[in-house]
Amino acid sequence: MVSTPTVIDEQTIRHSLAFGDEVIGVIARAFRELSDPSAHIQIPPIMQITVPGRDGLTCIKSSYNESDSIFAVKLASTYGGNRKEGLPTASGAMLVCSAVTGEVLSVLLDNGYLTALRTQAAGAVAVDLLANEDAHRVTVIGSGRQARLQLMAACHVRHIRHASVWSNDAEGATAFADDMASALAIPVEASGDPKQSALMSDILITATPSRAPIVHDDWLAPGVTVLSMGADAPGKSEIGSEVFPLLDRYVCDLASQCRQCSDLGNALRDGTIDGRYPVNELGDVLAGRAEGRTDPDQIVLADLTGVGVQDTAIAARAREKCETCV
Amino acid sequence: MVSTPTVIDEQTIRHSLAFGDEVIGVIARAFRELSDPSAHIQIPPIMQITVPGRDGLTCIKSSYNESDSIFAVKLASTYGGNRKEGLPTASGAMLVCSAVTGEVLSVLLDNGYLTALRTQAAGAVAVDLLANEDAHRVTVIGSGRQARLQLMAACHVRHIRHASVWSNDAEGATAFADDMASALAIPVEASGDPKQSALMSDILITATPSRAPIVHDDWLAPGVTVLSMGADAPGKSEIGSEVFPLLDRYVCDLASQCRQCSDLGNALRDGTIDGRYPVNELGDVLAGRAEGRTDPDQIVLADLTGVGVQDTAIAARAREKCETCV
Repeated sequence: MVSTPTVIDEQTIRHSLAFGDEVIGVIARAFRELSDPSAHIQIPPIMQITVPGRDGLTCIKSSYNESDSIFAVKLASTYGGNRKEGLPTASGAMLVCSAVTGEVLSVLLDNGYLTALRTQAAGAVAVDLLANEDAHRVTVIGSGRQARLQLMAACHVRHIRHASVWSNDAEGATAFADDMASALAIPVEASGDPKQSALMSDILITATPSRAPIVHDDWLAPGVTVLSMGADAPGKSEIGSEVFPLLDRYVCDLASQCRQCSDLGNALRDGTIDGRYPVNELGDVLAGRAEGRTDPDQIVLADLTGVGVQDTAIAARAREKCETCV
Repeated sequence: MVSTPTVIDEQTIRHSLAFGDEVIGVIARAFRELSDPSAHIQIPPIMQITVPGRDGLTCIKSSYNESDSIFAVKLASTYGGNRKEGLPTASGAMLVCSAVTGEVLSVLLDNGYLTALRTQAAGAVAVDLLANEDAHRVTVIGSGRQARLQLMAACHVRHIRHASVWSNDAEGATAFADDMASALAIPVEASGDPKQSALMSDILITATPSRAPIVHDDWLAPGVTVLSMGADAPGKSEIGSEVFPLLDRYVCDLASQCRQCSDLGNALRDGTIDGRYPVNELGDVLAGRAEGRTDPDQIVLADLTGVGVQDTAIAARAREKCETCV
């Protein structure tokens, strides 16, 4: 008889694993393994269910590193329609499986917490790797949960002294500014002119569900690091195609995936760039196999779409940490 | 705050839902909806993780009927390497999600039970629909769990009076014969000559993990109904390509999937048949939109690969039935 899986609830997971250097290290290692040419990692295409009437998208991701004894399957949902009922838009769960017997070892009822956490950590990895050391002004586009987490992530890896936020939800932007100013103890203003804010920023974060470009070529000052988190599925868009030829460096989480479903894919499809466009993976830059920023004035885009290796890595660590507490 | 999912264990699920007319009806309805041209059903491609060193395959399937308020995501694993350690080869779990809010409503820790059950029921639907009314001799190729369940399914829908079994695992075939004879109260013999047994049978069931064809063109007597259950992923094979031109009717669960991953796909790829080959779906035959068997002497193949609609249907019913007991 196979053993019964351990079921771990959100509260236990939250108590066991919070944002910080440990999680950032776990995710950085996952990216290095992902891009390592000697690693054998299976990353099946993302499975999706869409519920347009509820602005709903459920994504199932997985990855298996053939040198590991476990793998995870992660379900994460974002239902924009929940907002008007006061429900969280994000939810989900993860299954951790044995790669020896196939059996489900643990069910992590994280309600999307681990997805938010590994996404936040990926942003921290990218900003730490690519932003100028003295970066201190941030503009955030978007006012939702991940926009907040990404500002916190930037503040964790750089000494940020000022932040601006813009959202098409003006009330959301005001609430973001109030909440984050008190959480981070820095001035955070809701911006009336996001382009002007962006031009004054060292780091520009986009974390929206937008389906049309927001950031254009005249938004980018020399030295800026753009972190695009939102364009993670076909049809989504945050960065205008015309931005790509201007970039000094384009770094993404998984090249094959970004060519399909991020703004890189949009720029390739509309012909602004072609197959020769230099695409670097975060893991290659982390491992020194590719260059990141080499000059303080370079304009660098980090394009993160979310990869199953992050889910397997965070699920494995959460399970380890919870084992002592369930 | 979203609510915590209900977690339902295998024993509770087994007590609530067992093989019989109810389950067969649920699965027949799922097939009818699947093939209904007016239905809007999302069936994302199957996600797979393979662990060759353990003869392991994990499949993740899902489907969403846009007229329903829930959908299921099913993980099912088959690890042949478990056999030598005396562990079950099959395992798995299902997540039932709200199509309104995206949240995970229930976790069904079924260890593969519901997958086995919905697969058994699909076989019953196919045999009931396609086998001659007076079919009474069955040959089963394979001696594993699903081979047993398919013989039981055939006995449920036809008055079977004799069964033969052949397996490349001779001990397994003997155990199958002993166990099934006592369970079904009919003679069940381990066959030394599967071709001869097949030629004397009204129903020929293949339920193996074979990667090379077993059933060839000289195995098929007039009137036989072949039920192929095992060739459900690329690389697997039970029915020789040369069988396809001989068939009077080919009926499968999902045409697009079988063109990729069943023996139909193998026959298309090796050129034995081409795109004009008539492919009928079970749901169309059930609904009267396509013909099934029209003559007792026809040779009919039912090719079942397993579709996410079966998982969503069985998960929804299991959840309903368990709601009163957890």
